Amino acid sequence: MNRITLDRALEALTGMDDILILSHANPDGDAVGGMFALFHTLRALGKRVRCEIRDVPENLRYLIKPEAFAGFAPQNVVTVDVGDKKLLNDDLRAAYGDRVDLNIDHHATNVLFARETLVDPAAAAACEVLYDLFSYGGIAIPPVAAECLYVGVSTDTGCFRYANTTAKTLRTAAALLDLGVDNARINTDIFETKTPQYAAFERAAMNALRLCLGGKCAVLLITKNMYEEAGISENDTVGVSGLPRTIAGVYAGVTVKERENGVFHASVRTKDPVNAAEICARFGGGGHKFAAGCELGRNGQEAVRLLVDAVDQKLKECGLN
Amino acid sequence: MNRITLDRALEALTGMDDILILSHANPDGDAVGGMFALFHTLRALGKRVRCEIRDVPENLRYLIKPEAFAGFAPQNVVTVDVGDKKLLNDDLRAAYGDRVDLNIDHHATNVLFARETLVDPAAAAACEVLYDLFSYGGIAIPPVAAECLYVGVSTDTGCFRYANTTAKTLRTAAALLDLGVDNARINTDIFETKTPQYAAFERAAMNALRLCLGGKCAVLLITKNMYEEAGISENDTVGVSGLPRTIAGVYAGVTVKERENGVFHASVRTKDPVNAAEICARFGGGGHKFAAGCELGRNGQEAVRLLVDAVDQKLKECGLN
Repeated sequence: MNRITLDRALEALTGMDDILILSHANPDGDAVGGMFALFHTLRALGKRVRCEIRDVPENLRYLIKPEAFAGFAPQNVVTVDVGDKKLLNDDLRAAYGDRVDLNIDHHATNVLFARETLVDPAAAAACEVLYDLFSYGGIAIPPVAAECLYVGVSTDTGCFRYANTTAKTLRTAAALLDLGVDNARINTDIFETKTPQYAAFERAAMNALRLCLGGKCAVLLITKNMYEEAGISENDTVGVSGLPRTIAGVYAGVTVKERENGVFHASVRTKDPVNAAEICARFGGGGHKFAAGCELGRNGQEAVRLLVDAVDQKLKECGLN
Repeated sequence: MNRITLDRALEALTGMDDILILSHANPDGDAVGGMFALFHTLRALGKRVRCEIRDVPENLRYLIKPEAFAGFAPQNVVTVDVGDKKLLNDDLRAAYGDRVDLNIDHHATNVLFARETLVDPAAAAACEVLYDLFSYGGIAIPPVAAECLYVGVSTDTGCFRYANTTAKTLRTAAALLDLGVDNARINTDIFETKTPQYAAFERAAMNALRLCLGGKCAVLLITKNMYEEAGISENDTVGVSGLPRTIAGVYAGVTVKERENGVFHASVRTKDPVNAAEICARFGGGGHKFAAGCELGRNGQEAVRLLVDAVDQKLKECGLN
């Protein structure tokens, strides 16, 4: 259960075979990209590798390769972008949660659940850590893996927009472009393309946006009805979580979304100096300083009330209210 | 009227004094950023410099320094990000259009109207050309100028999202971060912040979006009413020009917008292989392969009809219709 260096991570990976790669439930671009970047890179090293993943959003499904799901009993289990084993899908956590050999991650809140953990909280994405690992070790990154890494780095930074984007992040992306990544196509597909159904959902979300706490907090309550009526599934709704914080004067943008299982999940995005991870920690959640999440039961209005109270208290602590 | 090298541009700039800097009318981030990056950098070299600029969008006004408007009769005139002198404000074109000594630009369509022109069509922004020029010449970039350059590079690439973003663009941005640019704050202010008024306008725009040509073209007709009712001015509406192309299946997104003077301007954004500059050239406009513009008279519906016909013909040429 210890934190390791790039050297040790390279040694560990090199010694593995028959590897199963996992990432967190409700996977985003960094989860899918990191998983498949590692898959392709380890396969190119001659290792037998497979992946297990569920509920991949529509616009990331093209990264999934059928050959990644060949069945074999894994000797080693590696996770990517997983801060805590409770973030694994239930069945995968039951089967593998206590036998993860190596976890490659970038969350400051990583609980070190794996036997060994390579975690760099200064990295914008798990894919940035993977790039560091491969380039430090002189491991060739196949073009298809470079594309996966670019997807992870670009999606976790909102295409280099969020506060986690460093000079090193931009140079990592530049190096991936040098490896042949077609960033124009990927950016268009991932950041600049929405289905007419998603556009309808987004319109409904914009109409549902409410300001409170004197305009310093914006709240968006998304019910199952809203995305079902627009004709999309819960996994295709993540884009709107950024909306509430975009209104000028808002320090905390809260999106409370009803999952398909009826549980409400809150996504909190903040601006300096308001700490989103601290707000979500009150409800057993976690994340980063300006983007965090937590679960809040089966009553949407109550979930909103709890979150707004927590934001109100945090704004007062920060002298903003 | 000739195209010059970095060496010659350095020599020309070094020899100038009492410099007036201009950029194009309806300035964007690259125009304002480039103008003030050059202003601060030349001032740090001990030169007397001033700027003339009008109609700067609200979110870029903080880049404007009052000391840039001290009056003196210029010995030299430099333009930044100006592909053609007809893109200057009318009064500035009348006063200075025929006496521009140096034009620093990145438009492939640059008509070389200045005495000397430094133009790099591979650069994502005029600010990328300026960075190349300063770093090639070993000219120190003051932090305030680095911020201006970052604003130009990031806005002209949609924060590193558009097809013009190269590995060199990303490394330029990384170098600017090394100079102390607070990209997190700038990105939040420019790309992640909208006033409640703009949000209301954006909702209206999304409701006005129409698909045509079998879903391969999306058209947004923005009338003066729409932005006046939302409480914003024309210069604060540029963000919606990207909307039409975002709908899946759309190859050409057309935004026809009524300017405050009653003239309709079309902004055309396309996807490979459809060439936006070629579509707009039919109406005397120009721009880049995937983003171009033109003016279309005082009848909005007629402007839409003309543009959709031109798109239809271009789609047929491309075998897409």
